[in-house]
Amino acid sequence: MTDYNAPLRDMRFVLHDVFQGPALWARLPALAERVDADTADAILEEAAKITGQLIAPLSRNGDEQGVRFEAGQISTPDGFRESWHTYREGGWVGLGGNPDYDGMGMPKMLGVLFEEMMYAADSSFSLYSALSAGSCLAIDAHASEALKAAYLPKLYSGQWAGTMCLTEPHAGTDLGLIRTRAEPQADGSYQISGSKIFITGGEQDLTENIVHLVLAKLPDAPAGAKGISLFLVPKFLPEADGSLGARNGAHCGSIEHKMGIKASATCVMNFDAATGFLVGEPNKGLAAMFTMMNYERLSIGIQGIGCAEASYQNAARYANERLQSRAASGAQAQQRIADPIIAHGDVRRMLLTMRSLTEGGRAFATYVGQQLDLARYAEDAGEREHAQRLVALLTPVAKAFFTDNGLESCVLGQQVFGGHGYIREWGQEQLVRDVRIAQIYEGTNGIQALDLLGRKVVADGGQGLAAFAAEIRAFAVDAPVHREALLEALVRLENTTRWLLAGVASDANLISATAVEYLHLFGLTAYAYMWARMAAVAQAKLAEDAEFCGAKLACAAFFFERILPRGLALEASVRAGSSSLYGMEAGQF
Amino acid sequence: MTDYNAPLRDMRFVLHDVFQGPALWARLPALAERVDADTADAILEEAAKITGQLIAPLSRNGDEQGVRFEAGQISTPDGFRESWHTYREGGWVGLGGNPDYDGMGMPKMLGVLFEEMMYAADSSFSLYSALSAGSCLAIDAHASEALKAAYLPKLYSGQWAGTMCLTEPHAGTDLGLIRTRAEPQADGSYQISGSKIFITGGEQDLTENIVHLVLAKLPDAPAGAKGISLFLVPKFLPEADGSLGARNGAHCGSIEHKMGIKASATCVMNFDAATGFLVGEPNKGLAAMFTMMNYERLSIGIQGIGCAEASYQNAARYANERLQSRAASGAQAQQRIADPIIAHGDVRRMLLTMRSLTEGGRAFATYVGQQLDLARYAEDAGEREHAQRLVALLTPVAKAFFTDNGLESCVLGQQVFGGHGYIREWGQEQLVRDVRIAQIYEGTNGIQALDLLGRKVVADGGQGLAAFAAEIRAFAVDAPVHREALLEALVRLENTTRWLLAGVASDANLISATAVEYLHLFGLTAYAYMWARMAAVAQAKLAEDAEFCGAKLACAAFFFERILPRGLALEASVRAGSSSLYGMEAGQF
Repeated sequence: MTDYNAPLRDMRFVLHDVFQGPALWARLPALAERVDADTADAILEEAAKITGQLIAPLSRNGDEQGVRFEAGQISTPDGFRESWHTYREGGWVGLGGNPDYDGMGMPKMLGVLFEEMMYAADSSFSLYSALSAGSCLAIDAHASEALKAAYLPKLYSGQWAGTMCLTEPHAGTDLGLIRTRAEPQADGSYQISGSKIFITGGEQDLTENIVHLVLAKLPDAPAGAKGISLFLVPKFLPEADGSLGARNGAHCGSIEHKMGIKASATCVMNFDAATGFLVGEPNKGLAAMFTMMNYERLSIGIQGIGCAEASYQNAARYANERLQSRAASGAQAQQRIADPIIAHGDVRRMLLTMRSLTEGGRAFATYVGQQLDLARYAEDAGEREHAQRLVALLTPVAKAFFTDNGLESCVLGQQVFGGHGYIREWGQEQLVRDVRIAQIYEGTNGIQALDLLGRKVVADGGQGLAAFAAEIRAFAVDAPVHREALLEALVRLENTTRWLLAGVASDANLISATAVEYLHLFGLTAYAYMWARMAAVAQAKLAEDAEFCGAKLACAAFFFERILPRGLALEASVRAGSSSLYGMEAGQF
Repeated sequence: MTDYNAPLRDMRFVLHDVFQGPALWARLPALAERVDADTADAILEEAAKITGQLIAPLSRNGDEQGVRFEAGQISTPDGFRESWHTYREGGWVGLGGNPDYDGMGMPKMLGVLFEEMMYAADSSFSLYSALSAGSCLAIDAHASEALKAAYLPKLYSGQWAGTMCLTEPHAGTDLGLIRTRAEPQADGSYQISGSKIFITGGEQDLTENIVHLVLAKLPDAPAGAKGISLFLVPKFLPEADGSLGARNGAHCGSIEHKMGIKASATCVMNFDAATGFLVGEPNKGLAAMFTMMNYERLSIGIQGIGCAEASYQNAARYANERLQSRAASGAQAQQRIADPIIAHGDVRRMLLTMRSLTEGGRAFATYVGQQLDLARYAEDAGEREHAQRLVALLTPVAKAFFTDNGLESCVLGQQVFGGHGYIREWGQEQLVRDVRIAQIYEGTNGIQALDLLGRKVVADGGQGLAAFAAEIRAFAVDAPVHREALLEALVRLENTTRWLLAGVASDANLISATAVEYLHLFGLTAYAYMWARMAAVAQAKLAEDAEFCGAKLACAAFFFERILPRGLALEASVRAGSSSLYGMEAGQF
């Protein structure tokens, strides 16, 4: 019953009007030759078609049928193979890929919008592509020229797919504990042995070959996280001409039975003296993997936005159709047995909460995409560095805040349906189950919060945040709407940060005790900035398009009046510090 | 992998120490002869056994196998029939039932604790019993002597089970729209015809007979909610001697495929000129049904507490076992590869959030149970009336706040497990799916909020709230701990209420625009009262039992410092009023 239509108008508003992507690309030589406003719009339109017509229709059956595992082989649900073929022929896996190896080299600002459409259409299908695109980033940044030439074109074309093999049964967050071993061979390759769990797409029937990026330890490696290296381990070893050679010792042992994303194969992967190739420097594997992890973190954040948008579309449609009770202010649909439930204040509250969080997230994802483009393509080293610093600061916020809001929104979108939201038929319960994983994988949201507060804020004495704050303040000076509320939110974040910076020296537990609430306070402030920017554009164009811009202004007002006050509670909770967490011994829990 | 143990010590603390149930029962003649402290403890211990050993082990298979529907028959999962037999022999369905018809007549204060255990063990199994017990309440309160004598003993004994048939495809919240018809017959019975959906236990294989309470319209009924009558429609018409007679025209047409509670049969029920018997007065059926609905609302609220407790137990166990990373304040388990994750602040934050919400809820459920006992058994009419007023005020808070907190807690309990929380093996994802329905059925939580703010607060000008507030203030005067925070929370609720009372006359949308946040603000204040009462007792007994009472005081401190501040945000959002909800036309959503 679900029917996803990419919100092209809203996406163009963010891309063109709010962040002026085309003007930016025109001044970045590498991008100027590849993309302009028309190219971007054409890509978005094609993406809307493929996600709405090819991928979204797979979602419900994909959930019900799930993946099958038999004799080491995975079967994806009906239609996945055919759709993957069409998908890969469009070159979508390589949308942001390096053109030197047949990638399309499109800006990340565009990529984030494409990813949102993918996740909105079906999270499971999207993951096969997202992991592959992420693996390409790590290979492109760290692998040898020979590996890049041999693997990247096949990965970008979707003939092969990549995976990310980190977790082991006893080592999830704490990767320093991994036991997978890499033995150097005479020919310069390595033999990889060990077991990995939770490997998305570790085995599948969509691509001819699968390329695993595996964290493992060399025999002489230092203990802990400083002794981890990264290896490329293909399912089939390619011959010199690119054809598939010998089957490598990388096998799927079983799959997980999960709450959602049931059409995504989550595999236990057993590496049995499998041939692998070092990527990057020995013992620097974690840093190399983080090139991929940071990409995936933003991507998984966007899963939260995509699922929320899909849920919103269903809920808004249902709320306009479902007749139940009369509006408090008097009957709205006299001739019908009752009013559409969208007349009721609480239904509007739910829909506007979803929408203001989802559109705030979309704008913020595009903003982070813009910083990624600047970090990669700006000619000035200072500009690149500034952008890179913002990316480092904002990536954990994006991952965790998008996905926490994604669950909240999907739960609300289910609630709008009442009892009908709890049954399979309308697809709303699947979105709740599918989006839930996004708060967990690629580093739990608790870990993102520690990364933000510990490594990105406290470690540099708040300088990265100061740079972001300066930008917000510079914008706020001339902001035509919500100026004071934005500044108030910013001051709240700055004051809370200062309080934390002053406290960490004397309280080792302060960071982990307050990090999650701090991240939410940060996210709300970032969304306030996004909504103030969107409102400024909408205000300027209101006469031109009253309906569209009026809706934007209404959503902005809702965000500032009804959502942003959450910061009051978050600040108070952070300022309560760590003491109330340590009043009990472990055994008293 | 789940392993539920009823928290007997905590339950006794609430029942005996905080609310002094035995002393209350001693002064209520009807209860004094039936129950004392020892009886209550014996019942709790037996309930702990049956829920932990008989019911909890059914849960995982119940979820995986689900109910089967074939040729009009339902098969419950393996073990349900046998366990129901044991369960019913214990007389548990009739625990609170009228002794005149073989019920046990136990106080509701005890009943709420028993229900919590049931839901914690398995929501699906519990529902068969909860609906049946609720139907007995409506029959006992409104049916004729003949119907009571014929049906109640069989229902209390669990030989038969009851259902509640309200919803139709086009009529959920808005029951005034129902189309099911009742035609009077010459013998005083009625022929019921129509279709009902979402009927829990509408068909099953646990009991010999099923007794449906069905809302329908008489031929001459007024339109809307004032024209609804209540009928008792048995699956088999009983003979005069109590044996089963003719099969009645009440059949299950299909079952729903749901997100969770998969072992609970959710049926489409078709009534085809089925013989039914009027319960209560013609056209007063909604009021009669509300006797059952209010019971079910508290019961379903308790589902939120039960699921949260089960999730907490699993999460606390896992957090003590799972080794990952070192504590920020230095290694806690030097000899092991890493520290148990309970050493990490954010894991403690999650566990304490669960625990402070769950224990706050348990105390509040017991408090509402106490008021129900007073409303039923107090000798003084004024005392009964006062208690009844509190019950009416607090029931929607209990239903919605318990279940919203239930979802939050189960999501946190899943998050503690990281990736392992998303897979079936540990049971945490099932609890999230099972608890989610509790926010929806028996009146969505949005409807509960409208009931609270519109009917229970605004309609009486805040007098009911004033009575509750006076009780809190009287307690706070001598509260040894958290006195000021409690009073501050109370003042916040009172001021917000006053602001709303002043605003409703000029804004018809204000109630539905703010009701959900208002309910949460009310719930937080009620929990603050509960935690202040628990802390007062724990403080007094600290020397006696430092470990248990110390943990209670630590949880209380966490609640006041880290959870209660949510009220700041809720108040601000309420005070933003309705205007930002109505800035868009329906078509702009």
